[in-house]
Amino acid sequence: MLLQLALDTPDANLAYRLLNQTGSDVDIIEIGTPLLIRYGINIISKIKQKYPQKLILADLKIVDAGAIESRLAFNAGADIVTVLATAHGETIKGAKTEAEKVGGKLMVDLITILDLKTMVHLAKTHDALGIDYICLHTAYDIQEGNNPNLTFNRVRRVNEALSSTKLAIAGGLKPESIASIVGLAPEIVIVGEYITKHQLPQKAVKKIRSIVDNE
Amino acid sequence: MLLQLALDTPDANLAYRLLNQTGSDVDIIEIGTPLLIRYGINIISKIKQKYPQKLILADLKIVDAGAIESRLAFNAGADIVTVLATAHGETIKGAKTEAEKVGGKLMVDLITILDLKTMVHLAKTHDALGIDYICLHTAYDIQEGNNPNLTFNRVRRVNEALSSTKLAIAGGLKPESIASIVGLAPEIVIVGEYITKHQLPQKAVKKIRSIVDNE
Repeated sequence: MLLQLALDTPDANLAYRLLNQTGSDVDIIEIGTPLLIRYGINIISKIKQKYPQKLILADLKIVDAGAIESRLAFNAGADIVTVLATAHGETIKGAKTEAEKVGGKLMVDLITILDLKTMVHLAKTHDALGIDYICLHTAYDIQEGNNPNLTFNRVRRVNEALSSTKLAIAGGLKPESIASIVGLAPEIVIVGEYITKHQLPQKAVKKIRSIVDNE
Repeated sequence: MLLQLALDTPDANLAYRLLNQTGSDVDIIEIGTPLLIRYGINIISKIKQKYPQKLILADLKIVDAGAIESRLAFNAGADIVTVLATAHGETIKGAKTEAEKVGGKLMVDLITILDLKTMVHLAKTHDALGIDYICLHTAYDIQEGNNPNLTFNRVRRVNEALSSTKLAIAGGLKPESIASIVGLAPEIVIVGEYITKHQLPQKAVKKIRSIVDNE
């Protein structure tokens, strides 16, 4: 199980400070969409240079021009690029071809899907396409209150639909919610705010790390 | 009817050259997603500075963090920001609140939707929310061959579903396809490749302009 830190701030200085405090405890550094919007792919190159030993995920949420957009991110140093699960098949294929050229990986994001049947259908579709990761993701904008996407049952159902594609989970995850689904052994656990807004990010990341490692 | 030029290249120098040749003939300058990915919001400020009299559309295709992401673009000088029609209602509302704060506008993009019934449903939903524009958009990755989204009948059906929201049309538009739907008087006609890949972009934009103006 890999721990992915979502740098969910648009402020690069804050992102670098967070990486100083937590970088050694994470496996994948996610460059969040707002950070990419603010600085463009330059921020990918900078973070990859500082952390060459870490996997870098560029959260572009590609929905069109799959080849062109994923190529920009892979060329800048991204190891993994995100594409929306609702993108046309041609977009996914375009991004996949680019990923294969450079040995990069794709993560397909279910972010707008709330219906479990549709999630399972899309999980099967992308599994059949040989996509590397599918992300069961509660959008930031709907994280208030409970986290209906990430119940044990829903994570289990999506996970069971996959044969070669690996599962990632994301969206408001905290120690308790991770603990409740860690038994399902998702490949990647993505944590943002619990670490990035914590008064002591170093302490927060170690707490998450211990749950992930003691699965 | 307004003409929007889609700067669909990730190369800023090419984008500036195209603007030199065509800028005076367009109403809205669209900073395409690949250009935003490459340079970040800095490219919005630069183009707005060069063309302060034009409307600037930032094609961010926002699907989460609606307030944060749209604010980045509006603060950089965008007049219009795009949001995916499939985003959660909370995301649309977050972006709308930011737009209202600065007198900016939102364009909701139907890019992944192929089913006419769903298009009409989403058009009605966003019309009821008071969204400024809805874009009937054939994705770049599926533009080969015919353009099934942009038939007269489909454009008419989506247009009829709107009361206050204005219609934009986009995706592989050429003089002939524009001529075939111009009678439906969409508010915005978006043209990329026909102008940007034309040997004589100035000639191409004037041809489109004459069709749009002689509706």
